Amino acid sequence: MSPEMSPVAGFNQLRRIESSTLFQGVVIAIIILSALTIGAKTYDLPPLIEQSLSVMDAAITLFFLIEILFRFAASPVKRRFFMDGWNVFDTLVVIGSLIPLDNSEAVLLGRLLRVFRVLRLVSVVPELRFLINSLLKAIPRMGYIALLMFIIFYIYAAMGSMFFAKVDEELWGDVAISMLTLFRVATFEDWTDVMYATMEQYPLSWIFYLTFIFLTAFVFLNMMIGAILEVMSEEQNAEEHQRAHDERDEIVRQLRTVQSKLDKLTEKLEK
Amino acid sequence: MSPEMSPVAGFNQLRRIESSTLFQGVVIAIIILSALTIGAKTYDLPPLIEQSLSVMDAAITLFFLIEILFRFAASPVKRRFFMDGWNVFDTLVVIGSLIPLDNSEAVLLGRLLRVFRVLRLVSVVPELRFLINSLLKAIPRMGYIALLMFIIFYIYAAMGSMFFAKVDEELWGDVAISMLTLFRVATFEDWTDVMYATMEQYPLSWIFYLTFIFLTAFVFLNMMIGAILEVMSEEQNAEEHQRAHDERDEIVRQLRTVQSKLDKLTEKLEK
Amino acid sequence: MSPEMSPVAGFNQLRRIESSTLFQGVVIAIIILSALTIGAKTYDLPPLIEQSLSVMDAAITLFFLIEILFRFAASPVKRRFFMDGWNVFDTLVVIGSLIPLDNSEAVLLGRLLRVFRVLRLVSVVPELRFLINSLLKAIPRMGYIALLMFIIFYIYAAMGSMFFAKVDEELWGDVAISMLTLFRVATFEDWTDVMYATMEQYPLSWIFYLTFIFLTAFVFLNMMIGAILEVMSEEQNAEEHQRAHDERDEIVRQLRTVQSKLDKLTEKLEK
Amino acid sequence: MSPEMSPVAGFNQLRRIESSTLFQGVVIAIIILSALTIGAKTYDLPPLIEQSLSVMDAAITLFFLIEILFRFAASPVKRRFFMDGWNVFDTLVVIGSLIPLDNSEAVLLGRLLRVFRVLRLVSVVPELRFLINSLLKAIPRMGYIALLMFIIFYIYAAMGSMFFAKVDEELWGDVAISMLTLFRVATFEDWTDVMYATMEQYPLSWIFYLTFIFLTAFVFLNMMIGAILEVMSEEQNAEEHQRAHDERDEIVRQLRTVQSKLDKLTEKLEK
Repeated sequence: MSPEMSPVAGFNQLRRIESSTLFQGVVIAIIILSALTIGAKTYDLPPLIEQSLSVMDAAITLFFLIEILFRFAASPVKRRFFMDGWNVFDTLVVIGSLIPLDNSEAVLLGRLLRVFRVLRLVSVVPELRFLINSLLKAIPRMGYIALLMFIIFYIYAAMGSMFFAKVDEELWGDVAISMLTLFRVATFEDWTDVMYATMEQYPLSWIFYLTFIFLTAFVFLNMMIGAILEVMSEEQNAEEHQRAHDERDEIVRQLRTVQSKLDKLTEKLEK
Repeated sequence: MSPEMSPVAGFNQLRRIESSTLFQGVVIAIIILSALTIGAKTYDLPPLIEQSLSVMDAAITLFFLIEILFRFAASPVKRRFFMDGWNVFDTLVVIGSLIPLDNSEAVLLGRLLRVFRVLRLVSVVPELRFLINSLLKAIPRMGYIALLMFIIFYIYAAMGSMFFAKVDEELWGDVAISMLTLFRVATFEDWTDVMYATMEQYPLSWIFYLTFIFLTAFVFLNMMIGAILEVMSEEQNAEEHQRAHDERDEIVRQLRTVQSKLDKLTEKLEK
Repeated sequence: MSPEMSPVAGFNQLRRIESSTLFQGVVIAIIILSALTIGAKTYDLPPLIEQSLSVMDAAITLFFLIEILFRFAASPVKRRFFMDGWNVFDTLVVIGSLIPLDNSEAVLLGRLLRVFRVLRLVSVVPELRFLINSLLKAIPRMGYIALLMFIIFYIYAAMGSMFFAKVDEELWGDVAISMLTLFRVATFEDWTDVMYATMEQYPLSWIFYLTFIFLTAFVFLNMMIGAILEVMSEEQNAEEHQRAHDERDEIVRQLRTVQSKLDKLTEKLEK
Repeated sequence: MSPEMSPVAGFNQLRRIESSTLFQGVVIAIIILSALTIGAKTYDLPPLIEQSLSVMDAAITLFFLIEILFRFAASPVKRRFFMDGWNVFDTLVVIGSLIPLDNSEAVLLGRLLRVFRVLRLVSVVPELRFLINSLLKAIPRMGYIALLMFIIFYIYAAMGSMFFAKVDEELWGDVAISMLTLFRVATFEDWTDVMYATMEQYPLSWIFYLTFIFLTAFVFLNMMIGAILEVMSEEQNAEEHQRAHDERDEIVRQLRTVQSKLDKLTEKLEK
């Protein structure tokens, strides 16, 4: 109504636009277009299409830049904008794709950073954001098991490179290569070829492989079971158990009322 | 009793025949026979048997046509017949197998459509129908995880075809081929061969494969756990929890009665 | 005490011997010895040891024959002896291993039947018997899913042998071979080799493999989840829920007593 | 206060040092340094670094020796020190790594025993200790299933070496080699190569492989389900169920009080 209100009104309009389904849909469409552009560039294309792809890429980059500035303008408290991890992520992706593609030196880096624009789909679609958040929550839970797994790998890799380095330098040359070879064994990828090669020199080396496979499979299985149980006990029944507990509490409270009423009645009779 | 009743009586008899165990058994037997006919045609057979197979195929096609018309005639409301997905499915399969097999042009298409007659077993056996229905129910639940998986594949495929196209055109030529190669890596199928080839040119490319394997395995594991939990919390304990809740409600209601009785008693004594 | 009691007394003694830990231990030891004998025969051995193995085999066969007759004699109701599946199984194994090994014609059959003596370990150790019984119980639960899996395999095998028979006769020659090839694809065993071969002639055949892998993996995953849930809902919480239900019932009963007492009290006051 | 108290005071100080975060941190740092030293030795290094590694190894060995003596001194009851499995484990690792590395004969043994020093990380970090303890608890639960699996492997291995020894001496030579080959089949590692080789001579031998794969997969699946259920029923809901049970008990107790009060009231009125 007064000229002083106009920035606030404009600001509110910004927010209304930003949270509209249409705006969200346009952003998602542009991200998918961007992904297709990235995919198209991996094919051999006639120069005309290559050129139009470059133009499109510039347009997409510009759109993303405007969109992030727009969202920054629409956020009520500017400081909070960068406290949301998804906003930081989006900003980094947009800044990363500002590297021009015609500069021959940084062309690979520029294209690589443009790939990550596909990840913006995760930050835009709420369901995917929720999924990623719940995946991130699962990481610490698996931390110590990953450490244990690493220790097992390290010990077997050290033993492997001690004994088998002479058999096959490329598979057991040093402790790092050995760990890669052991990961291959853990995925069952041609692991018998690796084993048969070392068994020619060390006929008992099958013990090395079998104990390793059993250990990793056993730890992995227990990790999975543990993860299932932990999630289950945390999320699933907690609400239901609380409800049951509250209802039983209510019963106990009512029983106390009954008793106090009885006590009063008895007192009255005694008088 | 009157001649006007006769169509209804005939209709009821149709329905009785259709839902009889004998009729169902005959249909199942014919479907299995049809499956065996399809299987038999993949062998090299003497002309006599080939010919008798063709006759049998025509007979089966005719039987299926009659059966679907019969079921259509037996259905009380004709419009509803095509609102059941299984009926539409059956009709399409029957129409599809009307393509003659002696017409040399469409012979492959005709044979292909005859293969799907085996699927009719699913629409006839109620237990399989139930299974398929519960599988279909599980699909939306996995939708967003599949989308997330696709994004991971797409980003890695784009990166892969960017860097490794020069190493092996057949594995990393474009983004589509790269996705196929990555699916191969995700199934652990000779993935080390793919890795060793790129490691010769990019010695650090093992990071690409290991992060990819960990990401897909991690997402998959969480997907599985999520699916288990979701089904569990939905179906399993709901009934039991409701019973417990109802029983506690009953206790609270009785307690209220006790209190009101006590109140009345007290009132009486005060008078 | 009287001569008429003697058969019963002898019978009781038989039963006491049969159920003694020592007897069980001896039987287990003999079974393990029998397993070692079978294993030893797969090595090239000097004639002396071979001969002593033959003598030992005869002794073990004799022991098993006596043991089964002894257990038959010790069973109180002879007809019931053969109603227990484990007894029938033991008897068949013992009869099977009566085939002499020196008869050159049936030597392979005789040795094969002797292998199954190892399975007697399952019928003797109660914990293994329990395990097998619970595994057998799980079979019907998986029956319809196995049928569904078979239908999927059959349809894909029929399609595969239709289109790919020309590509590789040994992998896709007829519907049976195709099913074996598809099982190989389902175990991810060199499945890309199979795919790349057919993709040369049918560039879109990757759709065939990917849909097949997703279908089987999806059905298998759901089967596993279903099995976990079914067992869980059956066994796990039933007892606990029953206890809770009984306790709540007890509370309701006591509340009814309280009310009837209150009613009596009120009646007395009104008088 | 008195000179007699001084050993106790010194002892208490020892314990305080031992359980301090700083001391624990130093021990963990030294273990990681030790692991890096072991890893570094698998690379080809210039003599100067090799020499400094040897010095470092001696220093680490000395540190571990002092640390274990220190912890022994800090333990209040000396006999109890060796009743804790982790202490025995630590002591054995330390004693094992006292073997000098310059003695050329035992150099490999010495290096091997030094590898196990990495395992001390498990005994130092409480979370890893907890993990290992819970893994050890899972072993007996899997014992009989492992025995059943072994019996299946043994029977198939005996059959395999009976029939297929002529086909491939290296894969089916004797019962031990056959078991290794079957383990390979169970991990799906090039199992079709093994099968196709025997199918040339025994066209029906696919039955052998398929039944074996189904049996092992089926037993394994049930083992996993069983393990999940057992852990779940043991740990998860026990506490919650106990709380619910206690609360219901409390309700019943209060109800009894209500009744006894009512009884007293009735008695008073009757007087």
